[in-house]
Amino acid sequence: MNRVWNFSAGPATLPIEVLQKAAEQMLDYNGSGMSVMEMSHRSKVFEKIIKDAEVDLRELMNIPNNYKVLFLQGGGHTQFSMVPMNLMKNGVADYIVTGEWSKKAIKEAAKYLKANKVATSEDKTFSYIPDLQNIKLSEEADYLYICENNTIYGTKFNKLPETSGKILVSDMSSCILSEEVDVTKYGLIFAGAQKNIGPAGTTIVIIREDLLRDDLPDFVPTMLQYKIHADKESLYNTPPTYGIYICGLVFKHLLENGGLSAMYQKNVQKAKLLYDYLDKSELFQGTVAKEDRSLMNVTFVANKEELNASFIKQAEAAGLVNLKGHRSVGGMRASIYNAMPYEGVQALVDFMSEFERKIINEV
Amino acid sequence: MNRVWNFSAGPATLPIEVLQKAAEQMLDYNGSGMSVMEMSHRSKVFEKIIKDAEVDLRELMNIPNNYKVLFLQGGGHTQFSMVPMNLMKNGVADYIVTGEWSKKAIKEAAKYLKANKVATSEDKTFSYIPDLQNIKLSEEADYLYICENNTIYGTKFNKLPETSGKILVSDMSSCILSEEVDVTKYGLIFAGAQKNIGPAGTTIVIIREDLLRDDLPDFVPTMLQYKIHADKESLYNTPPTYGIYICGLVFKHLLENGGLSAMYQKNVQKAKLLYDYLDKSELFQGTVAKEDRSLMNVTFVANKEELNASFIKQAEAAGLVNLKGHRSVGGMRASIYNAMPYEGVQALVDFMSEFERKIINEV
Repeated sequence: MNRVWNFSAGPATLPIEVLQKAAEQMLDYNGSGMSVMEMSHRSKVFEKIIKDAEVDLRELMNIPNNYKVLFLQGGGHTQFSMVPMNLMKNGVADYIVTGEWSKKAIKEAAKYLKANKVATSEDKTFSYIPDLQNIKLSEEADYLYICENNTIYGTKFNKLPETSGKILVSDMSSCILSEEVDVTKYGLIFAGAQKNIGPAGTTIVIIREDLLRDDLPDFVPTMLQYKIHADKESLYNTPPTYGIYICGLVFKHLLENGGLSAMYQKNVQKAKLLYDYLDKSELFQGTVAKEDRSLMNVTFVANKEELNASFIKQAEAAGLVNLKGHRSVGGMRASIYNAMPYEGVQALVDFMSEFERKIINEV
Repeated sequence: MNRVWNFSAGPATLPIEVLQKAAEQMLDYNGSGMSVMEMSHRSKVFEKIIKDAEVDLRELMNIPNNYKVLFLQGGGHTQFSMVPMNLMKNGVADYIVTGEWSKKAIKEAAKYLKANKVATSEDKTFSYIPDLQNIKLSEEADYLYICENNTIYGTKFNKLPETSGKILVSDMSSCILSEEVDVTKYGLIFAGAQKNIGPAGTTIVIIREDLLRDDLPDFVPTMLQYKIHADKESLYNTPPTYGIYICGLVFKHLLENGGLSAMYQKNVQKAKLLYDYLDKSELFQGTVAKEDRSLMNVTFVANKEELNASFIKQAEAAGLVNLKGHRSVGGMRASIYNAMPYEGVQALVDFMSEFERKIINEV
């Protein structure tokens, strides 16, 4: 077995302990005589798996009792529809557009309501978070929507906008569980599991109970109603059972390793190592405003366009993979989620330093 | 390791060879240095996994080139909305209601169009398939919908209704890959993977290309449009990558074992073993019309209500699990999908015979 350092933006690297456990339990989960994949979602053994996953996530994120935790399907894209469909009352919502995902979210929302772009950073390729002081929310807005960490661009809302009592909806797909958050500041949090939690195909939704409604417009599909899933504790239909099991293993792994405060410290150390190197490098530089840097997705470019491709190629040969930046930014992106160890980031920085040394010497 | 005989209706038993392969490849897929769970869905290695899965499914089912194969999320329940949303033109559709799932399907469809129940077997707890000769389809119907195998009740359409040129839509969740089918008779086939294919959270859709439309009503969410997924070959968003990989392993396993004609022969043998026993038993009896019996889900009851519970309990203690029938039917149900070996059914029949012998002797 030959593991690489995998900097993929998602689906992304998972804790090796979790994968080992999953492999061990593949043919016989805890003496049940079957794989988790083979279990009825109505069985006692699976009910314990999903309940434990919820309890552990509640502990990790300190989720208050008046919030429901849902395990759904369809990823962020399905949430782009579910959020307006389920939260619209006045038929107006405000969006802060800080990247491709919030762009897609506002476009989808516009099918259902008046979706106002109250701030954006598109003028500079989404390389910063707009000044939150000067945002004027719509009086009638049913909610304010943000994508809290922008996977493609490498920016993060390092503080939250003032919502003046409006419901805050956050797409946390690429930063959930990377640090402690105050859940009470949000009405709804969602995250595709495939970045910082587990396998693709499971979507976590954390929603304040008073936002669950059953008076939705007729055209809203039953499967896209939060209340349906909340009332049945994510077992209205067959949920993505194996994905939920892996999420649960990740939650347990995080709890055993100090929870989110420990995770945050580790993430700060990892990011600092890479950003500090970028800040002193003569070859590479970060692509986003320093105060808006993400701890999870670090975007950078070489000072000559042609060096980007050769860097990515050589890094891959050295076992540092999936470093190519998104096509809309170019250059490189290192996604250093919870499951990426410090040694992985160290290996990357060492490789970058050596690459830089060779280039400088060549000149 | 101690494997049981798992008669679960879904999620259900999987071929042990597939689980072994998945366990082996968990930390390092084919020398990639990562788990399939950790791979970008845009990577070459995953693109090959999903493409191979499609090619193998096409070979297994002999799917013509003018049909698209999609790997989606959301299960049958999401299809209940997608079918009417995507196929409605005249705003009328016909449904044959043969169980809980077609009941749910017609209810959901009624949100979007005039959904006619053209036949039903609800009068006798769905214990038969209605006479297909006497069904009168609506002139304006956009499609005719059936649930081809009724998991809960243990019935199967052993021949298809005459559609007079209308589009036939089939929910094949619990019979897909159990026998050869003529795909050209259908406009759309869908199946949740969790019964006869792989893990929950992946939905297979096979749709004739001329049914893909982009002129759908505004309220149809982007994620619920077949054409969006077809145009991007199931990579519009992050698909359930690990589930697709497991499906692909199952497809390869079936091809290596003779494909669907061999599978059908094996399934007939398995079902015959159990039905023959039921037909001669003095204690147990099948619950559905003989000519409509399913090869996949065998429903039966003991001649005294109180014996059902003790049978289920004793069977479980003997390693024959998940035999409890659905609450709407009571009694027992043995789901004997492709992955249930003949030995498993033999073990069940042996246990039933012995149970019967003891009961008869007690009297």
